[in-house]
Amino acid sequence: MQVIVPFAADAPKTRLSSTFSAAERRQFAGAMVRDVVDAVAKTGHDPHVLATGPVSVDVPVTVDERSLDAAVNELLESHFDAAGDDEPIAVVMADLALATAPSLDRLFETNGDVVFAPGRGGGTNAFVTRHPDFRVDYHGTSYLDHRAIASSVGASVGVVDSFRLATDVDEPADLVEVLCHGDGRTREFLVEAGFELVTADEGRVTVTRTDRVG
Amino acid sequence: MQVIVPFAADAPKTRLSSTFSAAERRQFAGAMVRDVVDAVAKTGHDPHVLATGPVSVDVPVTVDERSLDAAVNELLESHFDAAGDDEPIAVVMADLALATAPSLDRLFETNGDVVFAPGRGGGTNAFVTRHPDFRVDYHGTSYLDHRAIASSVGASVGVVDSFRLATDVDEPADLVEVLCHGDGRTREFLVEAGFELVTADEGRVTVTRTDRVG
Repeated sequence: MQVIVPFAADAPKTRLSSTFSAAERRQFAGAMVRDVVDAVAKTGHDPHVLATGPVSVDVPVTVDERSLDAAVNELLESHFDAAGDDEPIAVVMADLALATAPSLDRLFETNGDVVFAPGRGGGTNAFVTRHPDFRVDYHGTSYLDHRAIASSVGASVGVVDSFRLATDVDEPADLVEVLCHGDGRTREFLVEAGFELVTADEGRVTVTRTDRVG
Repeated sequence: MQVIVPFAADAPKTRLSSTFSAAERRQFAGAMVRDVVDAVAKTGHDPHVLATGPVSVDVPVTVDERSLDAAVNELLESHFDAAGDDEPIAVVMADLALATAPSLDRLFETNGDVVFAPGRGGGTNAFVTRHPDFRVDYHGTSYLDHRAIASSVGASVGVVDSFRLATDVDEPADLVEVLCHGDGRTREFLVEAGFELVTADEGRVTVTRTDRVG
């Protein structure tokens, strides 16, 4: 199965601007997309990066500068036009730094014409569609909107309950999850950059960055 | 299996003070603990609320005013003293408003002497222990600390990957998850209180409260 990994190559991870420089954000986003591609490859399926600009990964890349919705929907349409109705296709976001082959396998193996991995905050972090008419609309509460779109085309809906797939890494607080639960390049990048877990007020956990001098 | 549900009856959910009055916070926390107890009961196991003060639920309640760690650890010790080493016991936090019987069944059925459901931010939202010597320490990055404690007593560790069990409801942003994915009293409380999903800047989803006048 083809697994599309959409990636914002231009100005990735703007909500991490307070934490990383622009160059670091590009490196960090690059580590995440490579971790996601690796996790997909370990499931035995075929990762295919859909990027807004050039990206260095070891799998096929399609560059499409349009909006996420337009680019994904064109791929969905051309896929079902070419492959017919029997071949599913999946879309997995490039910032799911905790994604593993077992978590993705659960998504890919769940029954339903369209199966969603919800993200925190009403998002849709990944899905597989076996229905030729399902299309995406990522703005806002996309999880609820995508369920409605699936219903409107007569597609049955499945949901996979996964913390790993629900965790898209957008904000400084999300780095806690990578340090606690990650084990790939993304975690390695943070450790190398001097990030550590600290327990702050009220017992909440956050990250701090240690300036390491030679 | 006995499933302990620890509940802070006194001043629950202080991080929701900007959203709810003190009375509403008590109602909201009460709705959540009842949803959790119902989900546990649907698994066929035996919920048992461990509260810091009186609480109105339809299952056995133990009141213990001490710290969470002290109260839970005493129950773990007395359980294994009485039941021997063969009878597991579980602890499921009272603010897991998205917990369902299937998500809890996955926790209860995962292999391991101690099986964790990690919470966001390094927390431990639920666990089952089959090892008589495992004890809790909920401060800080309790998920990592609990793994270390399990190792130190020679217990094998399992982990369940569940968005529902990872979502403890502490902060206003967490109400989005309840409105998107909940279906019990907790969601009903929010809807009755006039909360709705709205899409704010950058496409992020939050909640707003509508003043409803007769």
